[in-house]
Amino acid sequence: MFNFDFYNPTQIVFGKERMGELDKLVPEDAKVLITYGGGSVKKFGTLQKVRESLGNRTVFEFGGIEPNPRYETLMKAVEIVKSEGVDFLLAVGGGSVMDGTKFISLASSYRGDDAQELLIDRRKVMKISKAVSIGTVVTLPATGSEMNSGAVITSSYGKLPIFSPLVFPKFSILDPTLTFTLPKAQVANGIVDTFIHTVEQYVTYPAEGRLQDRMAEGILQTLIEIGKKTIEDPEDYDARANLVWCATMGLNGLIGSGVPQDWTTHMIGHELTAMFGIDHGKTLALLQPAIWEVRRENKREKLVQYAQRVWDIKEGDDDFKIDSAIEKTRGFFESLGIKTRLSDYGVTEEKIENVVKALESHGMTALSETNDVTLDVSREILKMAL
Amino acid sequence: MFNFDFYNPTQIVFGKERMGELDKLVPEDAKVLITYGGGSVKKFGTLQKVRESLGNRTVFEFGGIEPNPRYETLMKAVEIVKSEGVDFLLAVGGGSVMDGTKFISLASSYRGDDAQELLIDRRKVMKISKAVSIGTVVTLPATGSEMNSGAVITSSYGKLPIFSPLVFPKFSILDPTLTFTLPKAQVANGIVDTFIHTVEQYVTYPAEGRLQDRMAEGILQTLIEIGKKTIEDPEDYDARANLVWCATMGLNGLIGSGVPQDWTTHMIGHELTAMFGIDHGKTLALLQPAIWEVRRENKREKLVQYAQRVWDIKEGDDDFKIDSAIEKTRGFFESLGIKTRLSDYGVTEEKIENVVKALESHGMTALSETNDVTLDVSREILKMAL
Repeated sequence: MFNFDFYNPTQIVFGKERMGELDKLVPEDAKVLITYGGGSVKKFGTLQKVRESLGNRTVFEFGGIEPNPRYETLMKAVEIVKSEGVDFLLAVGGGSVMDGTKFISLASSYRGDDAQELLIDRRKVMKISKAVSIGTVVTLPATGSEMNSGAVITSSYGKLPIFSPLVFPKFSILDPTLTFTLPKAQVANGIVDTFIHTVEQYVTYPAEGRLQDRMAEGILQTLIEIGKKTIEDPEDYDARANLVWCATMGLNGLIGSGVPQDWTTHMIGHELTAMFGIDHGKTLALLQPAIWEVRRENKREKLVQYAQRVWDIKEGDDDFKIDSAIEKTRGFFESLGIKTRLSDYGVTEEKIENVVKALESHGMTALSETNDVTLDVSREILKMAL
Repeated sequence: MFNFDFYNPTQIVFGKERMGELDKLVPEDAKVLITYGGGSVKKFGTLQKVRESLGNRTVFEFGGIEPNPRYETLMKAVEIVKSEGVDFLLAVGGGSVMDGTKFISLASSYRGDDAQELLIDRRKVMKISKAVSIGTVVTLPATGSEMNSGAVITSSYGKLPIFSPLVFPKFSILDPTLTFTLPKAQVANGIVDTFIHTVEQYVTYPAEGRLQDRMAEGILQTLIEIGKKTIEDPEDYDARANLVWCATMGLNGLIGSGVPQDWTTHMIGHELTAMFGIDHGKTLALLQPAIWEVRRENKREKLVQYAQRVWDIKEGDDDFKIDSAIEKTRGFFESLGIKTRLSDYGVTEEKIENVVKALESHGMTALSETNDVTLDVSREILKMAL
């Protein structure tokens, strides 16, 4: 097992009808900015419930945070924070809203001229000593952003991650019933996103993280058990509650503690989203089987373990097990209504070189747990994914 | 899944040679009281390393915290905290030292006349608004105290638990190599303690905590895989690292979130320790098989799941599976050198009534996840354990 640090101070408030507790969770004298995305939190009454729970506090609203939240959009919220003296940010939404709100928090506290530099210069992030407190009300289970210190922000520099312990949410309200009204396609994307977060931290090479492996396998097995069910019957509370908790646990730092991590799928996937507008979850679904085909030797031991423990494949030799596991994984994604070939999204072979160039320009030339996914390997993966 | 809250702000610093980081982890201007138990932390040089890492800080020492730490002992440390203006407590040891230090922290901050009342009056604990900060250097993996807010303290009121979010350690250094010198019997006790912490939160009744179940199973499977190995070859780093991490994860709140919890084994076990001086871990090992025999119907579904998933028992009917799982569990404890019968510890049938009376006097008349372990059921369990 590798040495590791684990720190995660977010208070999780999980279950039915917890929104009323906002009144205790947000400081009484806070000036609150509620951040959200499109209109669904208005349409389904979530925003109204949030406002009611906040009582007499001074409350501002900032809507319109888009999927793959953009720097320019978020800076408009930063202006409100500064001009109105906002001291609490309450993100109501999914990963994009939560990620965007983390950036709003940091940028509001940044003393430099151009907050966009926070996205490319880690030292500037580390110089920030205090950021505006964040709470979240989660309406889409997928990214784990509700219980981690990271965000992914899109700007003229590309789609880039930013991390700071200052932006761990103080609390996150996870009420599975708030997710009942989500479109099926978004739930499916969230299931795949959680699945891939997990395998990025698990299907690498053996490192004697026995419990971490078992936990990762537990998330994957649970997703396989409840995935289709929670799409088809969104109001099955227990199925949805299990999805919500898996999404949080998949990216709160625990399963990745002390073990190698890959993240190739996400890095190439980000380019596909940026270039072709394919949903994040769908980029992951189409890349993962191809990555395992191409990197079968590097990941052999963990792929066999994944086949045996997650899919209960006990017959045949190792290659048969790996083949079967890849096919079962693809079948699982397809069963959720998610296509798993690049060509399903209209991307043809001649576009691949553009993706490779984008990877190069973003410095993604040595990806994976062993830093040996070069541009050539990425090209091979993309061709395999066609 | 039940509604739940999860909050755990302890920073885990895990791995080889992390002690030097104490210098960054403890505030520079802190007045530190190092707390410890017997002489082993001196004998093996751990205390010396701790002092060196603390540099020029003002440091006091308080040794002699006994197993099952006593109120009277701990109040002597409280005097030092008050008279010397100590503002950081550094516990170096196992569960007893960490638990005792949590009580020292709370009692030092208590404004009432008699700190012993904190053990019987939860409201008095809740009135404390600030407590002395705690860090830990863990030398014995077992209790999970390094990453939770609870402690068990012995006083004239008996052996009682106390909880406060104020005593979550700020950090815990978990260096598995610090545990290499432990006596084999203590390691074995720690393995059983971790195992039983886990089943107390898992072998109850089904509640759709799918990931929680998988995580609990993961801890149990890992302990079964590495238990005997880490006793026989204490310097096998990876085996020991897995034990250390399982011990922490078994009682940091995660596996018990949103699911029923039992704790019958611990409550009856505390009486056996108090009355006969049997090690905590050994009381658990002798009670657990008997509890499962007696409460077989109440726990039927989870016992079958435990048999199938943890012990891979797939043949036979449910009763055969349960019988086999109980026997395998007993066999596992025995393989670690731990006896699993009350009579092995010299306790005979005529003593049982005294234990039942002690349970009665401590209000333990409706134990378990369903509150139906009456004194009569406890008596039956104790007889079964003979």
